[in-house]
Amino acid sequence: MQTPGSSLTAMREAGPLVHNITNFVAMNVMANVLLAVGASPAMVHAREEVAEFAALAQALTVNIGTPDPEWGAAMCAAAAVMVEARRPWVFDPVGVAATQFRQDLSAKLLDLKPSVIRGNASEILALAGLGGAARGVDAGDSVDAAEDAARVLAVRTGGVVAVSGPVDSITDGTRVARVANGHPMMARITVMGCSLNGVIAAFCVGQPNFEATVAALAAYGVAGEIAGQTAQGPGSFQMAFLDALYNLTPEALDAATRVEVVA
Amino acid sequence: MQTPGSSLTAMREAGPLVHNITNFVAMNVMANVLLAVGASPAMVHAREEVAEFAALAQALTVNIGTPDPEWGAAMCAAAAVMVEARRPWVFDPVGVAATQFRQDLSAKLLDLKPSVIRGNASEILALAGLGGAARGVDAGDSVDAAEDAARVLAVRTGGVVAVSGPVDSITDGTRVARVANGHPMMARITVMGCSLNGVIAAFCVGQPNFEATVAALAAYGVAGEIAGQTAQGPGSFQMAFLDALYNLTPEALDAATRVEVVA
Amino acid sequence: MQTPGSSLTAMREAGPLVHNITNFVAMNVMANVLLAVGASPAMVHAREEVAEFAALAQALTVNIGTPDPEWGAAMCAAAAVMVEARRPWVFDPVGVAATQFRQDLSAKLLDLKPSVIRGNASEILALAGLGGAARGVDAGDSVDAAEDAARVLAVRTGGVVAVSGPVDSITDGTRVARVANGHPMMARITVMGCSLNGVIAAFCVGQPNFEATVAALAAYGVAGEIAGQTAQGPGSFQMAFLDALYNLTPEALDAATRVEVVA
Repeated sequence: MQTPGSSLTAMREAGPLVHNITNFVAMNVMANVLLAVGASPAMVHAREEVAEFAALAQALTVNIGTPDPEWGAAMCAAAAVMVEARRPWVFDPVGVAATQFRQDLSAKLLDLKPSVIRGNASEILALAGLGGAARGVDAGDSVDAAEDAARVLAVRTGGVVAVSGPVDSITDGTRVARVANGHPMMARITVMGCSLNGVIAAFCVGQPNFEATVAALAAYGVAGEIAGQTAQGPGSFQMAFLDALYNLTPEALDAATRVEVVA
Repeated sequence: MQTPGSSLTAMREAGPLVHNITNFVAMNVMANVLLAVGASPAMVHAREEVAEFAALAQALTVNIGTPDPEWGAAMCAAAAVMVEARRPWVFDPVGVAATQFRQDLSAKLLDLKPSVIRGNASEILALAGLGGAARGVDAGDSVDAAEDAARVLAVRTGGVVAVSGPVDSITDGTRVARVANGHPMMARITVMGCSLNGVIAAFCVGQPNFEATVAALAAYGVAGEIAGQTAQGPGSFQMAFLDALYNLTPEALDAATRVEVVA
Repeated sequence: MQTPGSSLTAMREAGPLVHNITNFVAMNVMANVLLAVGASPAMVHAREEVAEFAALAQALTVNIGTPDPEWGAAMCAAAAVMVEARRPWVFDPVGVAATQFRQDLSAKLLDLKPSVIRGNASEILALAGLGGAARGVDAGDSVDAAEDAARVLAVRTGGVVAVSGPVDSITDGTRVARVANGHPMMARITVMGCSLNGVIAAFCVGQPNFEATVAALAAYGVAGEIAGQTAQGPGSFQMAFLDALYNLTPEALDAATRVEVVA
């Protein structure tokens, strides 16, 4: 049976090249997270080369944290390459509720049917509401409140939707899994979610998206728990987290995984 | 009586959303500094959304460290929103003496009357000279030499001007305060000043700008002193600094604060 | 006789201002690496100011890791300033094999005759093949395989070419030196190579390019070895590496240097 540990092993053996079009805040940490976990990162965004590069990659992540129109066009072009090649791509609708520009860009990216969407509860609620009435969903919504929205999005895209929070919720429109791993300090460091997108994408290469996403979230959360055992604050947590991801064994991961498949 | 410690408590209770248009070097560290101290950071720069986003934020910082014309226009648009909404915004004229482009952009931003200007002595001297004769002020000017320039700028903008250095100097055009907290290693790590802008902005939310700026500089300097007690070099200093900011209590801050109000 | 240690001392006494047009992933770490080793970094890219700023700097680095056409034009403009002023500039052809856009941009930069080119074996092989037949050189080529290509490039540009790997190889077209310092963890952290470009540029200020490049690679590798003695993974390695660079003495460097001049 596939466990998060066996998923981790399979991902490390593949060592996939993950192409990321992400925000400026996340780039360095995300690259280090991907290297630590065992994948190979690349950040490429120029329209002059983004499609050509995407064709070389095994997976793609798109994150609208610091978007502009040029980057938005590059995101769509790269995602289209992955869809055509039937390779996984992960979409993170950062702050989608905040501005009309993010909503318009997110609607275009949704049309390209992401393999996995990952966001916090507010972002998933806002994303599900695009084309509907609601706007301006505030941060602070609970994961529970977002589970219905996640299911709607999963059915609409035919992909997986993951809601990050104290307990993560993952659905493919039929099944729902909850991952209870993690540490409160992960919310006190920037780009922890952004970097997770890359880990999800890496796990999805050659693995089924739902199981791969669950495994990625478990691995990330367990590494956070290990880091939390020694950290004195967000600075030392950040350092310990990269060390923990790098040193995480499949056995330790499976022993610490707290996953519940609900339906 | 308001102390830096009570200012810190008030800022953490407000937990303000600080919108930053800053340079590429600073973004990640600045976001982590804001999270560590207890505020909420966002980096948004596209002209298509920057004004809409600024309207959601409690404070703004603008930093011209890696500017271009598009970003310059976004800076002005966001600052105008804060002025209109009577919310604080902080301007950091990084390297203003170096190029004509920075001087022209800084002159436009000065016209928008920043609530707080923060820079090193050379930058404050150069900024005060805009529209005057001098250009090309070299780095290495002392804080003392910049105090007159700071006063001139404060009177011109109606705001606060802070000169960073071994002893910081803060003026509102009438009063002058000096903050002697800090650690020499802070000058051996990049973007320590850039990240401080965010802390100043966070403290200014709902607090008077002069007192808030003094409190922010004291908190930052005391965290640096704590980090310096264990750091072995700039790598471990950086980690310890985030931990110290996160763990800083109002009591420890007030006990360590070295502030002198001169006039 | 000049040793890496005496080169380090000379560089620190000069404290050169190094202008970097590098990728978004590298900027923060590269700035901290330059500060830790004893130089002064600046990141400036806008066409409106890049030539004016380059004229103030003692050395330049150009890195095409996250290029676009605007940045490409800025790279060429800044490099032209350094050529005209007879100051050193370092070119890093990141991922040149991956896309036509990178090849076209690299060809233009090659025409500006970089003082030093630094890349991994695959990048140097691909760069040497520009204008020739081969494209799409895969990563994984050995340093040995790239030594001929490095020599060809060095003769063509009149500069120095450094191939990074477990053992680095440096040539000026006539001489070849190999530097055996370093640590395997350096390949598990992003932008270690990118940041090295800045160190090379700093060492080249007022020192002959070949000897300066060898010294820079030795210093970097020795700092990596020191960091590797205490690191528990890539997070703690990164921290320890900055500490080691900062604390590196000329004596410790000369004692640990493993350089072989082959021809």
